[in-house]
Amino acid sequence: MTGTTMTTPVTDTEIFEGHEGGKLSVAATRPISSPRDLSVAYTPGVAKVSRAIAEDAAKAKRYTWADRLVVVVSDGTAVLGLGDIGASASLPVMEGKSVLFKTFGGLDSIPLVLDTTDVDEIIETLVRLRPSFGAVNLEDISAPRCFELEDRLKEALDCPVMHDDQHGTAIVTLAALRGANQVLGKDISGQRVVVSGAGAAGVACARILQNAGVADVTVLDSRGIIHSGRDGLNPIKRKLAETTNTAGLRGGLGEALKGADVFLGLSGATIDESLLAGMADDAIVFALSNPDPEVHPGVAAQYAKIVATGRSDFPNQINNVLAFPGVFRGALDSGARAITENMKLAAAEAIFAVAQDDLGPDRIVPSPLDPRVAPEVAAAVAKAAEADGVV
Amino acid sequence: MTGTTMTTPVTDTEIFEGHEGGKLSVAATRPISSPRDLSVAYTPGVAKVSRAIAEDAAKAKRYTWADRLVVVVSDGTAVLGLGDIGASASLPVMEGKSVLFKTFGGLDSIPLVLDTTDVDEIIETLVRLRPSFGAVNLEDISAPRCFELEDRLKEALDCPVMHDDQHGTAIVTLAALRGANQVLGKDISGQRVVVSGAGAAGVACARILQNAGVADVTVLDSRGIIHSGRDGLNPIKRKLAETTNTAGLRGGLGEALKGADVFLGLSGATIDESLLAGMADDAIVFALSNPDPEVHPGVAAQYAKIVATGRSDFPNQINNVLAFPGVFRGALDSGARAITENMKLAAAEAIFAVAQDDLGPDRIVPSPLDPRVAPEVAAAVAKAAEADGVV
Repeated sequence: MTGTTMTTPVTDTEIFEGHEGGKLSVAATRPISSPRDLSVAYTPGVAKVSRAIAEDAAKAKRYTWADRLVVVVSDGTAVLGLGDIGASASLPVMEGKSVLFKTFGGLDSIPLVLDTTDVDEIIETLVRLRPSFGAVNLEDISAPRCFELEDRLKEALDCPVMHDDQHGTAIVTLAALRGANQVLGKDISGQRVVVSGAGAAGVACARILQNAGVADVTVLDSRGIIHSGRDGLNPIKRKLAETTNTAGLRGGLGEALKGADVFLGLSGATIDESLLAGMADDAIVFALSNPDPEVHPGVAAQYAKIVATGRSDFPNQINNVLAFPGVFRGALDSGARAITENMKLAAAEAIFAVAQDDLGPDRIVPSPLDPRVAPEVAAAVAKAAEADGVV
Repeated sequence: MTGTTMTTPVTDTEIFEGHEGGKLSVAATRPISSPRDLSVAYTPGVAKVSRAIAEDAAKAKRYTWADRLVVVVSDGTAVLGLGDIGASASLPVMEGKSVLFKTFGGLDSIPLVLDTTDVDEIIETLVRLRPSFGAVNLEDISAPRCFELEDRLKEALDCPVMHDDQHGTAIVTLAALRGANQVLGKDISGQRVVVSGAGAAGVACARILQNAGVADVTVLDSRGIIHSGRDGLNPIKRKLAETTNTAGLRGGLGEALKGADVFLGLSGATIDESLLAGMADDAIVFALSNPDPEVHPGVAAQYAKIVATGRSDFPNQINNVLAFPGVFRGALDSGARAITENMKLAAAEAIFAVAQDDLGPDRIVPSPLDPRVAPEVAAAVAKAAEADGVV
């Protein structure tokens, strides 16, 4: 049985104290303690550096922080499992993200939360700010807007852009599924995977699993199984209907889970445990909604051999922090102009490779605190960027 | 004789090494070293903080960094004395500004450089980013656009907004003139002040000097003395023509400086030393253009009792760093919604008060490194904010 060991829950006092005054600060890389320091960092010295960049734009890469700065951008429309709570309320999450970028990837980042939910305006804003940063981490932006936003931003900006709720989740989920299968002695390609949720994470997970060789993926939204006979599908779901559900299943989660090997919960909705009873032997349940998993891991463990959640207070935490610091670090280190599908697959393999040292039913992914992960991911991502010719 | 002691000039190598990789980094205020830290700073803990802000927007003030964050905003159109060199080339200056905000004001700030010079677009961009920051320092934006931009931004945003090239310069210039007059035993109100340059700094200096009691101010632009008989004046210069030059002077710098007590150089153009010969006894010359003063301070000292520049490698550095860290710190500490004229005058008085301990011909302002300045300025600004009812 897995997934039942919960550490002492953190208290509200502990949480609010941990956020008092915000979680970020800006520091100077070199101290200013003499008139000479001031002459170098500010006037008159800085004029020479500005002049040099004006004459050769490529020098900005070397003499400013922009090229190594990630902006963490949100409009607050899909914050954790809390929904559309607005830009200001999303800021603690974005600050947290910047803390993790620094802690694990050694990357500087700043949160930019936007008081607009208009895709055109978000793109326009980031295009105007382009000289200020080196990469964009989109965060907690609702579907299906997030798909259009990411696609168009990638076109508009000549730098790495990644919507982490899509691809960070997809990368770590793939790594975790590789780990779980290794523990169970199974192969990913022959499995039936049910993805509950056709939002940002659901769509990206279905895509990366297919790219990694899973032939049988079925995706559900709030109306049930997505199949080609359904009316009123948006373009994203229409594409899913065409490329998933090869068995032509119809109905709800009960129908989808009958005989399924993997349940991937990314819906934000709780499910009845009885639905898990119909899954195949050696089932795998990833209940990833945050902060409240689709099913309590202790309950899920009655029906599945391997259970994982998105939370840090249960074992097998499928947390994006295993991916995004290394992915952006690798992309920026290599000078990549984009983050390709192969870079994401390489990141998943690197996370899985680190986990292999110590695999077990409660250790299908490395700890989010494992310092080996981000450098390994960064190296793999940089290599894939070169192989893909985007550097 | 003053203004002739130049320290060993900094070398290009020293300068470029001092900017390598940029000058800023972002740090977490609390380390992430355990799963518990992660649960507090990120999921699941952060969800409670986001929920609390969603329910009570005022809590963002307490639980995010936004309320204590200054954005240093430029479009790169008037960078130091270098002119319109673009957003990317302006970034080293903005990073330097953030370094100084931190070093002297203990304030976190981030540079945002914009790839647009359209005033509407700059305002629109900052309005969209409003939940991300607590105050706006506009920097190196060309005149006369900077006047409209600042005025309209103050209307559009409910937070402190200050164009530092205008008001930071004006505050420190007033403080320095008070110091110089104290050394010379003169009174500011009876002096004839000539301001060369009707850009951002020139206009703001003329205004603050008038508000501080100088009755006779004459301003020149590249076409000469601004007077009410001139055609083709823009609205800003038209207003200057109406409110300055009470003697009705016409002509160029030679005419203006005849018998003048104070020359304030803010034009970016070098001047011929012979022009200074016509000034009154006990003349004061502030040659503030950066990086190249209007006249070398060693030359100016032949004609003036007190000489100052904007550079850190000469004595009497009239540098905005004496003002902006304390002004913004005072405004943010007091919760001010705006920066008023009285707050600026209070800042100038506070700088002058610190200088009084050790006044001399080469010490009319405190050293930019004097740690007493910013806290004194902050306290005076906060007090003025309360008196003005903007908190």
